[in-house]
Amino acid sequence: MERQGNLMQFRPDIKVLDATIRDGGLVNDFYFDDEFVKNLYHANVSAGIDYMEFGYKASKDIFDTTKFGKWKFCDEADLRSIVGDNDTDLKIAVMADVGRCDFKKDFLPKSESVIDMIRVATYINTMPAAIEMIEHFHELGYETTCNIMAVSTAQESDIYMALELLGESNVNVIYLVDSYGSLYPEQVRELSFKYQKIASKYGKKIGIHAHNNQQLAFANTIEACSYGVSYLDGTMSGMGRGAGNCTLEMLMGFLKNPKYKILPVLKFVQNDIEKLKAAGVVWGYDIPYLCTGILNLHPRSAIAAMHDGDKDYSNFYIGLWDKDV
Amino acid sequence: MERQGNLMQFRPDIKVLDATIRDGGLVNDFYFDDEFVKNLYHANVSAGIDYMEFGYKASKDIFDTTKFGKWKFCDEADLRSIVGDNDTDLKIAVMADVGRCDFKKDFLPKSESVIDMIRVATYINTMPAAIEMIEHFHELGYETTCNIMAVSTAQESDIYMALELLGESNVNVIYLVDSYGSLYPEQVRELSFKYQKIASKYGKKIGIHAHNNQQLAFANTIEACSYGVSYLDGTMSGMGRGAGNCTLEMLMGFLKNPKYKILPVLKFVQNDIEKLKAAGVVWGYDIPYLCTGILNLHPRSAIAAMHDGDKDYSNFYIGLWDKDV
Repeated sequence: MERQGNLMQFRPDIKVLDATIRDGGLVNDFYFDDEFVKNLYHANVSAGIDYMEFGYKASKDIFDTTKFGKWKFCDEADLRSIVGDNDTDLKIAVMADVGRCDFKKDFLPKSESVIDMIRVATYINTMPAAIEMIEHFHELGYETTCNIMAVSTAQESDIYMALELLGESNVNVIYLVDSYGSLYPEQVRELSFKYQKIASKYGKKIGIHAHNNQQLAFANTIEACSYGVSYLDGTMSGMGRGAGNCTLEMLMGFLKNPKYKILPVLKFVQNDIEKLKAAGVVWGYDIPYLCTGILNLHPRSAIAAMHDGDKDYSNFYIGLWDKDV
Repeated sequence: MERQGNLMQFRPDIKVLDATIRDGGLVNDFYFDDEFVKNLYHANVSAGIDYMEFGYKASKDIFDTTKFGKWKFCDEADLRSIVGDNDTDLKIAVMADVGRCDFKKDFLPKSESVIDMIRVATYINTMPAAIEMIEHFHELGYETTCNIMAVSTAQESDIYMALELLGESNVNVIYLVDSYGSLYPEQVRELSFKYQKIASKYGKKIGIHAHNNQQLAFANTIEACSYGVSYLDGTMSGMGRGAGNCTLEMLMGFLKNPKYKILPVLKFVQNDIEKLKAAGVVWGYDIPYLCTGILNLHPRSAIAAMHDGDKDYSNFYIGLWDKDV
């Protein structure tokens, strides 16, 4: 397990992906105003961010379009209203959930779309469906990732099998996703090493998407990075479901590639994120998230506790013990 | 650089120190009410915490006793009003700052005091004064630590010399202190390894005291721990100067020794810490602290920005560039 790079130089293989709209959209049902999204796009371009994930391309048959903002669906026209033809170095990504999108109907060929990359999110038990989607998107001409969610609850042997399947597919990037924010850096190191082994065998890249339940999102991201993981997800001020994500401002402060700039990120935070917070949108580390993180549970009960203003943390923790029975 | 222990078992050499009153006192000038301190003491006993640091034993000639709460001075009678004869497994610690205490006058022999351990805080340039104090406290019968502050701005060769001096002294524990919250886990690993080398040569223990400017206090603490560092500092909800410290609730969730209990910590947080926060006492991660952390600067300008409610983060960051000129 050799570390790659050091704290003085930079690795040109590193790519940063901003997932603010996609993961942050889980906080506000994707109701961002256009100014926010435009400002974010321009901030990302200025900061040297490599990819911006706009949201999901969810099925309009499954999800009611009147109950979500437009970034749950990412229509081509809506994307173009923000990025035009996207004549920048920033690439555009969207997420497609296994079982929650009409992937054969809703995606144009790459030549007709401003989307560059499609990220396929899957649990470990739906890998064949994920790979079917990946191959379809590959044929349409897109870059693809496979984000295997909730690996902290998966069997290691299943993870290896999934990685082998992906190795043999046309996917470009395989993501290590700590959905519950329960992994410690030691575990991220082990997993990174195993993902990297498959990556070098099959010529894939590895990415990491971390959650901040135990205030380890940034630490886990740079730990994975130091073992060769090269696609790093972050969001503005960590905006994302529950405890949120690795913050882009921390990543910009850490990464040594001079193309990355922290000031556009800080400006976006002080202007647009502060406005969102002032309007009452809430995310980020708090003790209920720590509790579900420690116990390796989905954060849904913590989100409910935060929503209800329940500060009886000890009772909340005790209540979690029964969740798996 | 071998890791010690794993995530399934526990290392019996690990000791946890609660520094809530001492580091938290830097937030509220040590004005804690007795109920808070008593509740904290009982919570620490119940949680299996090994040491509780009550505060400083600062010189009353140098510091005005009307401008600070009593835990800036930790008179024996004040300690006993909380702990009686301290008939528990929890040991009592206080901090003595080089140049800011009357160490020959203000410390009783151990046989007459409830204090068990004296932690000598020093910068790298006052090691001889620190060692003089350590030897004095050793002769009085106390356990001692030496907390070398702000090592992120010290020359490595100076750190090695200081460690050798301490190795030859009677100090029990040498602390790695990330005063500016600027160290990344990779750096903590390197430093831990070097501190541990001296420790095993001279039969000393190593401790870590981390700050949370980059949300790395917990990550850095468990990283150091995994390389054999055995004295781990934490505070309730991270209460401490600026961005605060590693939280005890995270440590209690992480450590596997069954003597450590998270519920008394959560109960203290939901009752006593929440009350303090409701009264307007503020600490913890925020972007100005990230900025000073990234630039390896003392957090004083970030504390001022937070106090002034300055949210022009980009301008604040630019302003920091000139601080070293």
